Amino acid sequence: VSQRDQQGAPREERGQPRPFEPFPVLSSERIYDSPWCGLRRDWLDLGDSGDEPQEYHVFEIGDAVSVLPLLEDGSILLIGQYRHPTGQTRWELPAGRIGEGEAPELAARRELLEETGHAAARLLPLPGFYPTGGISAHYAHCFCAVGCVREAELSLEPSERIIVQTFRADDVAAMLAAGDIVDAFALIPLLYYLHFGARLLEADAEGA
Amino acid sequence: VSQRDQQGAPREERGQPRPFEPFPVLSSERIYDSPWCGLRRDWLDLGDSGDEPQEYHVFEIGDAVSVLPLLEDGSILLIGQYRHPTGQTRWELPAGRIGEGEAPELAARRELLEETGHAAARLLPLPGFYPTGGISAHYAHCFCAVGCVREAELSLEPSERIIVQTFRADDVAAMLAAGDIVDAFALIPLLYYLHFGARLLEADAEGA
Repeated sequence: VSQRDQQGAPREERGQPRPFEPFPVLSSERIYDSPWCGLRRDWLDLGDSGDEPQEYHVFEIGDAVSVLPLLEDGSILLIGQYRHPTGQTRWELPAGRIGEGEAPELAARRELLEETGHAAARLLPLPGFYPTGGISAHYAHCFCAVGCVREAELSLEPSERIIVQTFRADDVAAMLAAGDIVDAFALIPLLYYLHFGARLLEADAEGA
Repeated sequence: VSQRDQQGAPREERGQPRPFEPFPVLSSERIYDSPWCGLRRDWLDLGDSGDEPQEYHVFEIGDAVSVLPLLEDGSILLIGQYRHPTGQTRWELPAGRIGEGEAPELAARRELLEETGHAAARLLPLPGFYPTGGISAHYAHCFCAVGCVREAELSLEPSERIIVQTFRADDVAAMLAAGDIVDAFALIPLLYYLHFGARLLEADAEGA
């Protein structure tokens, strides 16, 4: 029996590739530790493919959430946020680190409230992602926040500079097409919603 | 004259928000330097919003490229790549760091050839992105590689474990819908292409 079905790629490969055997870690060196981030250097045994142990830097940072807030009329909230590493202010989604022991859904509701002053009727899970999988296991959980309503003022850290703005979905689509949105934590949920959002909201309406 | 046009958001806000004034950097401390990455800690003057200087970690890593390879029949090449930080093998796009003084387009063609053995007839620019804009200025340039043909064997670093597989565009869309693709460097170009690809290829055909 062939492993290929009649639809193209082999069935098992459409989901995930057959996993490679991990490289054994010979030793691991702490370079930096802080409450915000860590950095380590692992030495890998490459086996047959390398004679010498290979150094591999791994950046450590807590997992995060990103939230796409929808109002009842289908419009989308974006935040204009200043980012020190680039010195730029760009349109993004509310996002941030998950607290110690905090569930991703709670972190999503907290960030939504802090950074936009809004609360959601329901959170729908969106696919998550690894922003920099080549150098970090840092993972982002994503949610679509449905039925958002204004509940409070923004509650920002002293280093956060944020404004909130409501956009028509069509305007967000035009901004995505033009490449105006450049932050991965905004791009991935927004592009996913742009293409699959109708399906997502339909499933939500059937379940609600 | 109103700053709002009749289409929704104010015209100037559809592109980028009005920039906030940057926080002045009072001092900057080198934590780590290497050819692969660096880490520094800046101390920011928050002005009225904070009494004390605020520490801000910035992770430094060279800019990168990510390439979406299309064959003549519209099918898409993905690579199954082992990633040490997560220990996982996932479907991704060919991607990597830009060399010293290397143009992004050349880096894209080099990574495409090294990681898939393919060469492209043309590279079409896709919107780029900041994978972790909150902690790094690291930027990814993205391209759609049109008319790819096999030219060589893969040319991998000892620490790279990669297989190449051709997928029907429909299968990639199903994988994206299901959340099977989790790497930001693959997700952003693929989601963009899924929604805006027809428009992109039409413009390319008119120009060619």
